[in-house]
Amino acid sequence: MSAREPLRVVYHLAVDAARAEARAEVLAREQTVEVPRAVVRDAIVRGEALGRVEALREDPGGGFRATLAYPIGATGLDPAQLLNVVFGNSSLHADVRCLDLEPGAELASALGGPRFGIAGLRAAAGVAGRPLTCTAIKPMGLSTAALASLAGCFARAGVDFVKDDHGLADQPWSPFRERVAACLAAIARAAEETGHRPVYVPNLIGTPERMRDAQRFAEDAGARAVMASPMLVGLPAFWELCRRSSVPVLAHPAFAGTLRFAPEALFGKLFRLYGADAAIFVSFGSRFAQGEDACRAVAEALRRPWAGLRPALPVPAGGIELASASKLVEFYGSDAMLLVGGDLQLEADRVLERSRDFVRSVHAAAARA
Amino acid sequence: MSAREPLRVVYHLAVDAARAEARAEVLAREQTVEVPRAVVRDAIVRGEALGRVEALREDPGGGFRATLAYPIGATGLDPAQLLNVVFGNSSLHADVRCLDLEPGAELASALGGPRFGIAGLRAAAGVAGRPLTCTAIKPMGLSTAALASLAGCFARAGVDFVKDDHGLADQPWSPFRERVAACLAAIARAAEETGHRPVYVPNLIGTPERMRDAQRFAEDAGARAVMASPMLVGLPAFWELCRRSSVPVLAHPAFAGTLRFAPEALFGKLFRLYGADAAIFVSFGSRFAQGEDACRAVAEALRRPWAGLRPALPVPAGGIELASASKLVEFYGSDAMLLVGGDLQLEADRVLERSRDFVRSVHAAAARA
Repeated sequence: MSAREPLRVVYHLAVDAARAEARAEVLAREQTVEVPRAVVRDAIVRGEALGRVEALREDPGGGFRATLAYPIGATGLDPAQLLNVVFGNSSLHADVRCLDLEPGAELASALGGPRFGIAGLRAAAGVAGRPLTCTAIKPMGLSTAALASLAGCFARAGVDFVKDDHGLADQPWSPFRERVAACLAAIARAAEETGHRPVYVPNLIGTPERMRDAQRFAEDAGARAVMASPMLVGLPAFWELCRRSSVPVLAHPAFAGTLRFAPEALFGKLFRLYGADAAIFVSFGSRFAQGEDACRAVAEALRRPWAGLRPALPVPAGGIELASASKLVEFYGSDAMLLVGGDLQLEADRVLERSRDFVRSVHAAAARA
Repeated sequence: MSAREPLRVVYHLAVDAARAEARAEVLAREQTVEVPRAVVRDAIVRGEALGRVEALREDPGGGFRATLAYPIGATGLDPAQLLNVVFGNSSLHADVRCLDLEPGAELASALGGPRFGIAGLRAAAGVAGRPLTCTAIKPMGLSTAALASLAGCFARAGVDFVKDDHGLADQPWSPFRERVAACLAAIARAAEETGHRPVYVPNLIGTPERMRDAQRFAEDAGARAVMASPMLVGLPAFWELCRRSSVPVLAHPAFAGTLRFAPEALFGKLFRLYGADAAIFVSFGSRFAQGEDACRAVAEALRRPWAGLRPALPVPAGGIELASASKLVEFYGSDAMLLVGGDLQLEADRVLERSRDFVRSVHAAAARA
């Protein structure tokens, strides 16, 4: 193996002790040279391209954990080929799960990670020292006027970030450009009344070319953050979007849960490595079954010092109820953004009041902490 | 629901009879309006955006099958938002699998499907009436000269398609442009000797911008087909690549197996809908555990008349051995492309002979059929 620091990936292998070593060796070939062992003849292929089993140990929960070292030359330092090396073909093998990865300094620097990170999101909102609050304008099917009116209502309630629902695209009921302009205007009007101007976060979704146009429009219109779903648009397209962005980017988890990835490896590390400034993930206390340990692991993976990359903001979400907000503040601490969506709209004539309750309960819980 | 033909998606729900109806209704909201039922107040939201449970029946294997109808307005006729409606948030729910989808005529026409299809691939190779043969230059780590020499060898053996291994990217050992030019030249030299000129298929992998450059280079250099991995680069980026392509596009399944999708829905229908002219998939008789029924379903979903889209070519693969080639010809029939990779290189000094054996065995099996 060359002197460059390798990419390390940890996998769980559902095999018994008799087969573990051979299985790990097959995995190392599958992810790089992809030929039978007898065909690995060339010295450079063997020394500089082939993956290597660096560690193999029994997993306390059954099966084995294998740490593989891949020469980073195999990734070509490209975001798409990196995914290929991490979990391309082996994703088609039912006995493998991807648990963890360490890109090393050179690869991490090539990908770049968050360009704004937690500090950039706090600067956009003008908030220090407490958790941030976030809600979504929805549901899909509302007119632009109705969605903008909701945005204005949330602004008056004092929410920090008002984002598009991730299902708001360029649909007949509310075309993208019309919605972005109207929501920014509604928030500006609310700001004139109250002095509080939340960050409106348009949802960028589409093919790469459509996303580039939408991104340019949103930034020119004055959006101070944007959102995209890396697994829907493709992590490589998400990476390009982050590289180009002049404002922080929130990552939404749609289409991601189907992967046989440990949540902290996917939402924590990969999303951060590819440039997410904040990662939305389904939390305990939501309508998705995610345990507290997994949630803690995701939040820590996003925030802790890692690979020279900026920290990214954890955004627990997924149908969190107003009543749980203060408990979640205790759990996730200050460097987090709480996203409460539909629950704020439960009572048609009390959206402003419920939104104010949300803001108050987060601020109060933060003050107690 | 509006008069436009809806998008229909079939899911498996791992629930008991007491919960089935409510679970399906929750799924319909999750994939569209994404709010509690009480928040679905607006008449247009309820009538034109909300998904609807169209059928619900017990699955003989346990659980329930739910057919949901989504207004196609919800997709915005966009490739990324379509994925979002099909399986965005619900991919994060462990009790749901996506089994099938029917886009309907308007959505199918908006996506467009294969631009060349089986006929275009046959025209590129100049082969009618028998299965096509394919192999891959590999392993990663070989120099451009060594890879081009393999391409020339496969050409002389009479293989129809010679493709890059899906792990060949833009790596130090063989940069993309250098490799494409050298392989096309090696195949042209072989064609002068033998009169047979196979189709060389470069692998396009990278971010959307890098793929666009690579695609332009490959087409200008004279490549008569290209390959990409839809799940690595993102299905929406793959769709744009297919729309732009002046040559047929082969789809590789890397990073796809992790999805909780029925193989025929993902590799058969979605890959075809998004524009794949041929879909490579792991077959029985390979190093991947895929049953014959699933393989038949994938092949049929690619080829049968569907939604007004051109048929796409099934490409069974995944470590098929030379000895299985004739059995696979019997199974898949004439409209298929057999991909045998590493096995042709098992003996260093007999690559040409083994490749000739592969070609002969496919031709002979086809003649017997």
